Amino acid sequence: MKLDRKGLLIVISGPSGVGKGTVRKALFERSDHDLVYSISMTTRSIRPGETNGVEYYFTSREDFLDQIEKGNLLEYAEFIGNYYGTPKDKVETLLNEGHEVVLEIDVAGAAQVKEKMPEAVLIFIAPPNYKSLEDRLLKRGTENLNIINERLAKAKSEIGEAIHYDYIVVNDEVDNAADRIMSIIRAEHAKASRTLNEYNKLVEDFK
Amino acid sequence: MKLDRKGLLIVISGPSGVGKGTVRKALFERSDHDLVYSISMTTRSIRPGETNGVEYYFTSREDFLDQIEKGNLLEYAEFIGNYYGTPKDKVETLLNEGHEVVLEIDVAGAAQVKEKMPEAVLIFIAPPNYKSLEDRLLKRGTENLNIINERLAKAKSEIGEAIHYDYIVVNDEVDNAADRIMSIIRAEHAKASRTLNEYNKLVEDFK
Repeated sequence: MKLDRKGLLIVISGPSGVGKGTVRKALFERSDHDLVYSISMTTRSIRPGETNGVEYYFTSREDFLDQIEKGNLLEYAEFIGNYYGTPKDKVETLLNEGHEVVLEIDVAGAAQVKEKMPEAVLIFIAPPNYKSLEDRLLKRGTENLNIINERLAKAKSEIGEAIHYDYIVVNDEVDNAADRIMSIIRAEHAKASRTLNEYNKLVEDFK
Repeated sequence: MKLDRKGLLIVISGPSGVGKGTVRKALFERSDHDLVYSISMTTRSIRPGETNGVEYYFTSREDFLDQIEKGNLLEYAEFIGNYYGTPKDKVETLLNEGHEVVLEIDVAGAAQVKEKMPEAVLIFIAPPNYKSLEDRLLKRGTENLNIINERLAKAKSEIGEAIHYDYIVVNDEVDNAADRIMSIIRAEHAKASRTLNEYNKLVEDFK
């Protein structure tokens, strides 16, 4: 029995090459969860084969700017001329339905989310050490050395921000990291501060 | 890989009849933990068959009062003319060795611990509702109705304090409750605020 009924907004960040995708996949493959992805909103054009509301919510630049104005974006950023962001109302509907909503974004986006929704749970996925991240980026073999060096420089500044997250999960082994995230979700649901509604019912029951 | 090496001080409270003992037993029976009990210090006389440092640390009233004065007790209380308390130095040694130290105390004691050691993790074990607690107390069949009513009255005031705990775990089913406590322990170890030492090493590694 959980004392709260609302889902959690789980924000996952981590440097490129840390294995976020693999951890996320391991997490979603578990049966004992009710995790869903948050679908982003974007102003980029819809491509053949894409469906509005599946890959993204597609919208106009005018509407997107209007949503920013109205405070209806938990976070947003501009990327090569297009806006991308997380619609607050869609996320809140999912949370109220009891789903845990997973948002994979960078450190700048995570900071925006925490400001707008302080109850969000921020998890930073860190490599065990520098060497392991370098090894992973090299092993991928998909990028040239310049790009790898750029990613490592970015990782350095991202890791400097990790302390502002609620949790730091070291990805030493994918299943361990996924276990730890599941534990964080379970523990967060037991937090006294999240259980006020149901807790008050319990107190009433004892009157 | 955990980012912190120190164990956690886990304070467990809950009303009489909630099943704390059963949950604790289920917790200690799991293989994947390093839980130890904190041994209390007392001024009551040692009984035949007891060993100093096993059931209790036995000491004189004079020494106990001296320890209070020196702030070396995380919490203490007087009970039928004898003092009982938790020696801070013993707990800290265990924590520094990496053990999770479990302390089962009442709400007054828990508040004292949180004041002296804010990093302690306070878990309140709650019944699903009033009826279930009443049923359990009646089923025990070991106490008369007066005592049961007293316990229920005490439970009412204790549940009123639960909101000051870090976590509220509902004991609907023993294994669920024990699972949730294990999740809390794992999650707490991943808290960014607990990982400063190792985190700084990681940041250094990226410089």
